[in-house]
Amino acid sequence: MAERTFDVIIVGGGPGGYIAAIRAAQLGMKTAVVERTHLGGVCLNWGCIPTKALLRSSEINHLLHHLEPHGFTAAAVSFDLARIVQRSREVAQRLNNGVKYLLKKNHVTVVEGHGRLAGSGRILIDGQPEQELKAKHVILATGARAKLLPGIGPDGERIWTYMEALVPKTLPASLVVIGAGAIGVEFASFYHDLGAEVSLVEMTDRVLPAEDDEISAFARRAFEKQGMRVQTGTTVKAIVPREDDLLVTLEGPDGSRDLMADRALLAIGITGNVENIGLEGTRVQVDRGHVAVNQWFETGEEGIYAVGDLVGPPWLAHKAGHEGIVCVEHIAGLETRPINVQAIPACVYSRPQIASVGLTERAAREQGREVRVGRFPYAGNGKAVALGETEGLVKTVFDAHSGALLGAHMIGAEVTELIQGFTIALTLNATEAQLLHTIFPHPTLSETMGESMLAAFGRAIHV
Amino acid sequence: MAERTFDVIIVGGGPGGYIAAIRAAQLGMKTAVVERTHLGGVCLNWGCIPTKALLRSSEINHLLHHLEPHGFTAAAVSFDLARIVQRSREVAQRLNNGVKYLLKKNHVTVVEGHGRLAGSGRILIDGQPEQELKAKHVILATGARAKLLPGIGPDGERIWTYMEALVPKTLPASLVVIGAGAIGVEFASFYHDLGAEVSLVEMTDRVLPAEDDEISAFARRAFEKQGMRVQTGTTVKAIVPREDDLLVTLEGPDGSRDLMADRALLAIGITGNVENIGLEGTRVQVDRGHVAVNQWFETGEEGIYAVGDLVGPPWLAHKAGHEGIVCVEHIAGLETRPINVQAIPACVYSRPQIASVGLTERAAREQGREVRVGRFPYAGNGKAVALGETEGLVKTVFDAHSGALLGAHMIGAEVTELIQGFTIALTLNATEAQLLHTIFPHPTLSETMGESMLAAFGRAIHV
Repeated sequence: MAERTFDVIIVGGGPGGYIAAIRAAQLGMKTAVVERTHLGGVCLNWGCIPTKALLRSSEINHLLHHLEPHGFTAAAVSFDLARIVQRSREVAQRLNNGVKYLLKKNHVTVVEGHGRLAGSGRILIDGQPEQELKAKHVILATGARAKLLPGIGPDGERIWTYMEALVPKTLPASLVVIGAGAIGVEFASFYHDLGAEVSLVEMTDRVLPAEDDEISAFARRAFEKQGMRVQTGTTVKAIVPREDDLLVTLEGPDGSRDLMADRALLAIGITGNVENIGLEGTRVQVDRGHVAVNQWFETGEEGIYAVGDLVGPPWLAHKAGHEGIVCVEHIAGLETRPINVQAIPACVYSRPQIASVGLTERAAREQGREVRVGRFPYAGNGKAVALGETEGLVKTVFDAHSGALLGAHMIGAEVTELIQGFTIALTLNATEAQLLHTIFPHPTLSETMGESMLAAFGRAIHV
Repeated sequence: MAERTFDVIIVGGGPGGYIAAIRAAQLGMKTAVVERTHLGGVCLNWGCIPTKALLRSSEINHLLHHLEPHGFTAAAVSFDLARIVQRSREVAQRLNNGVKYLLKKNHVTVVEGHGRLAGSGRILIDGQPEQELKAKHVILATGARAKLLPGIGPDGERIWTYMEALVPKTLPASLVVIGAGAIGVEFASFYHDLGAEVSLVEMTDRVLPAEDDEISAFARRAFEKQGMRVQTGTTVKAIVPREDDLLVTLEGPDGSRDLMADRALLAIGITGNVENIGLEGTRVQVDRGHVAVNQWFETGEEGIYAVGDLVGPPWLAHKAGHEGIVCVEHIAGLETRPINVQAIPACVYSRPQIASVGLTERAAREQGREVRVGRFPYAGNGKAVALGETEGLVKTVFDAHSGALLGAHMIGAEVTELIQGFTIALTLNATEAQLLHTIFPHPTLSETMGESMLAAFGRAIHV
C-alpha cells in the first residue's frame, strides 16, 4: 500500500477544501486534497457557477423580448437550449481546470478518490490499489447534497434535483419548483424567463424565508407580476408520474389540491455529507446532519477539523472558503480572527436579484434592540430610471442607540454586486456617524445604498 | 419690484444646488433656488443621466451583435436612433420632473430666471418684472460648461459639444472625439458601439489621464481592440467643414496629419460659470475660472458660499451634491466634517467601464510613500467567466507601513457599481488588517476586489 505523509490533508475539493489547500500551501505546509468527483465541488460544477451562466442566458432572453423601449427591433428571436446548457458546462469545465491549475501551481497534491478517516491522522483512499495518506492535521470539507422528501422522487427524468435542472434536454412547458429558497427561486427565474410556466411552492409562509420580511414580500410580488404562480404555506404530498405529465398533490391553507406539470424540481434544502467518511468511533460529533466545530473549526477529535457546508448553514461557497482560510491560518499559528457570521452576505441571482447581509429588521427586534430602519426605492434613483430597472428596494437596519449598522437587505438590478459595500461596512463595525459621510458615485444604482442609510435618519434626499 | 426674504438662496439648480436646497429645507431653513434653464442642471439634463440612457442602448446593440456565444439567434437586428435619443430625453425629463417634485415637497421656492449678486445678501433675477430676493446666506452653484478651443467650432451642426452629441439626428459614419477624458471616452464608446468609426484624440500621453497609468493603458488596449483609433500626445490645429465631411488637422508625435470625419466632438474640459453672476466688486475670488472657497465652501465675502463645478474639479455631480450638504449643514451650525477629497469616487461608463477612488500608484509614490500594490484580473473570476466578461483588472494601493488603503482602480464590467465598496473603506480609513477579513459573496465580480487586496499582501487565492 502506497503511503504518503503531509502537513495537512483536506478531504473534499469544493470551495472550502481547495481554498484551504491553497492558503495552506501559501503558508508553507505540505498539502494534499482528496476529491472523489470534481475539483471545485458542487458550487463550481453543479451549483453557483453553471447556474449563473444559465441565468445570464435567461436574462438575455428577457431582454430580447423587451427591446422596443430601448429603440431596438429584432426578428426571429430564438435560442438553442442545448447551446445554452453547453455554454454553462463549458464555463464550469473552464473553472474546474482553473482550480486544477491553481492547486498544481501551489504544489498541492491532488488525490482522486473517496477519502475517509482511518484512525488518528490517517486517510484511506478507496481504489485499486488502496492508498493511505498521513498528516498531523486533517480538514474535512466533504460538502453537502440536496435534501430529499421521503417517498417523493427524484427519478432523474422528470422529478429533478438541481443536477438535472442544470442540464435540461428540452424546455419543459411547465415546471413546479418545490422550495422557494435561493436554489428554487433561481431555477424558477431561469425557466420562467425562457418561457416555461412556473409554479413555486414553499412550505413556510413566504418565499426566501431567510430574507427580511419586506424583501420576501417584494420578491413575491415581483415573481407574481411576471406571471409565476406562488403558493406558500404549502407542502407536497405526492408526485405521481403519468404518461404526459406529473400529478403533484399539494396540501395548502385551503386544503389539498392537484397540480399538473411537465417537470418538478426538488429544492427543499441541503444536508451535510457526513456518511462514510470514517466518523464512526471518533470523537467527532454530528448534530442533525452536520459536523460540530468550534470557532477555529476544530472537531471533538484532536487534529480533525471541518469546514464548509459540512459544518452547517449558511450553505455558501464564500463562507466555506473563508472558513478554510481561518482554519488553516489557525493551524499555522497565525493570528487570525473568528468569522463574524453577521458579516457573511447572501445572494440570490433571480430576476430581480436579492442580496443581504447582517440582521433582518425582525431578528434585530427579537434581540431586543431598538432599531432605525431606512428604505429607498429604485424608482427614486436616476441610474435605475436610465437603465429601465426601477423595480427594487434597499432597506437598512441600524441600532438606534449605538448607530451601528446591523443589516442591509436589497432587491433589484445588480444588488448581488452591490452588497459587498454593506459587507465591508459591517466587517468594519461601521456606524451611521461614519457611513453617512460616504460619497456614492453618481449616477449609479449604489446611490440607493447611501439614500437608504440617510433615510434611516430622516435625511434621504431623493424621496 | 417684488422682494422676498429667505434664510438661504441658492443660485443654480444643478446637483450642488438642488441637493443643498433639500438639505437646507430639512434643517428648517426657508430656502429658494434660482435656476435659469433646467432644474437638475447639466448633469441631469445634458450630462450624466441622458448619457447613461444612451449607453444602455449602445450596450444592447453590442450584445445583439454577440448573441451566438450565449445560444441565441435573431434576425434583422436594427435600431431607431430617433427612438434611442427620445428615450434618453424622456429619462432626463422624468428626473427633471422628479427634482421639481422633491423641491415642492420640501417647500423650497423655485425661482425661474438668471440670478446674480447685487450687494450683500441680495439676488437680482432678470426678467419682466425684475425680482429681488434677500437672504443672509447665498450659495452660488452655477456649475460649469464645456471648454472650447480658440478658433475651432463648435458650429452646432457638425462640430459638436456634448449638447449636440446627446441628440444626434443621424448616426455619423465617422466621428473624431477631441479629448479622452470621461466625457470623450463615453461618447466614443456610445458611437462606436452603434457602428460609427471612431477616432479618439488626446493631448496628453494617455487616455483617461486622471486614472492610474495601468488602467489607462488597459483602457486604450481595450478601445483599440474594439477597433477605435486612439491618438495620444496629439492636438487639434484646425477643423474645416467641407461639403461632405470635416477636415481635421492634427499635430502629433509624428508631425502634422489630416483626418476626415463626418462629425467632431469637442470634449477637452470644463470651465466654471463665473461670468455675469455679480462677482465684480465683491471679495469673492476667482482663480482660473473657478470660485475660491475654504473647506466649508465660504468665499472671501461673508454670507456668500459656492459649491459644485463652480469651485473646481473633480467635476462630478456627487461631489457637488455632497458639498452642498456640507455647506448647508455648516451654515445651520451642525457638526459636520470637511470632505475627504481622496474618498470621492470617479466613474467612466464606457465599455469597458472604469472606476476609481483615492490615490493612483504614481500619486502615492510621488507623496514619498512606500506602497504595496495588488492586482487581480477579471479572467480569474468565476462570475466574469459565467457572464462572458473576462476583460478587466482591479488594482489596489496600500501604504506599506500603516497598511491603510490608499486607492483602488478598476476597469471591467460593472465597476461603476463596485467602486462604492472601496469608497466606504476609504471613508472609514480602513486598513488591510480589517479589510482582508471581508467575505465577498460568491459568485460575484466583487470577489475581484477582495482578491486584489489579498494580492497586495501575497495572499490572493485565484491567481
